[in-house]
Amino acid sequence: MTRKRIVPSLLAASFATVLAWATPASAQFAKPEDAIKYRQSAFALMGAHMGRLAAMAQGKVPYDAQAARHSAQIVDTMAKLPWEGFVPATKSAKTGTRPALYDNMDEVRQLVERLNRETGQLVEAAGGLDTLRTQVGATGKACKACHDKYRDRDL
Amino acid sequence: MTRKRIVPSLLAASFATVLAWATPASAQFAKPEDAIKYRQSAFALMGAHMGRLAAMAQGKVPYDAQAARHSAQIVDTMAKLPWEGFVPATKSAKTGTRPALYDNMDEVRQLVERLNRETGQLVEAAGGLDTLRTQVGATGKACKACHDKYRDRDL
Repeated sequence: MTRKRIVPSLLAASFATVLAWATPASAQFAKPEDAIKYRQSAFALMGAHMGRLAAMAQGKVPYDAQAARHSAQIVDTMAKLPWEGFVPATKSAKTGTRPALYDNMDEVRQLVERLNRETGQLVEAAGGLDTLRTQVGATGKACKACHDKYRDRDL
Repeated sequence: MTRKRIVPSLLAASFATVLAWATPASAQFAKPEDAIKYRQSAFALMGAHMGRLAAMAQGKVPYDAQAARHSAQIVDTMAKLPWEGFVPATKSAKTGTRPALYDNMDEVRQLVERLNRETGQLVEAAGGLDTLRTQVGATGKACKACHDKYRDRDL
């Protein structure tokens, strides 16, 4: 079966220069809950596949290049999605997100750009165990940089 | 972390050898809830982007080729993910999935293959409004073919 391109390159290309992660014309959520569900779903898949990569990096699961590339591509694709779910209408919702995030969107954007750079490199790095190990660490740090500031707890 | 593997034996036996979307060697869920969360997250993102495409197809939102391609790619990527989350250990869980699904994995596989073909074509079709309209319909029918049989309710 043919596998379609996972990474929308034009999205990746436009991300750094314009607010591609901000709401494009067609990206709308009918309710704040929809936006929360959307971003949490993307985070859940990103986390699941980061977990698989970490297990390989740590030797808990045998390294498998195909599985690693698959997980890295999912991580990279998911890493571009959640941000549009942080719409102002969700600021007061009880989630794991600190409300301060909504007041610091410029910094959040920078943190997201860093994450997206790291996840892009993760796809490249997944082809070898040594490079994967290094890049899982770097990607994890990019996750943590934002979590430490804006996440209250594990979801 | 000590992760207890739930070996998706049914999936492994019937899916993994032939299908790219089937469980790779490293696919593991520590708990049944993790498998459910994983598949529901993929369905949620697939549904959100199908909704955006449907809104364009129905003229509720102006057609935007870039946004359409992005959504179609997400739908196509997500359409390959949820199935490994239907591990036997989740059969008795209270979700929107009818337990009969777990007893008819051969048919489910065929329904998923149909869906994957349609979502692949959706990516191609997203480049024009007329083709998008047609293919959103065809993709929706592929979703519905499985929902009608194996989904109890909207999640």
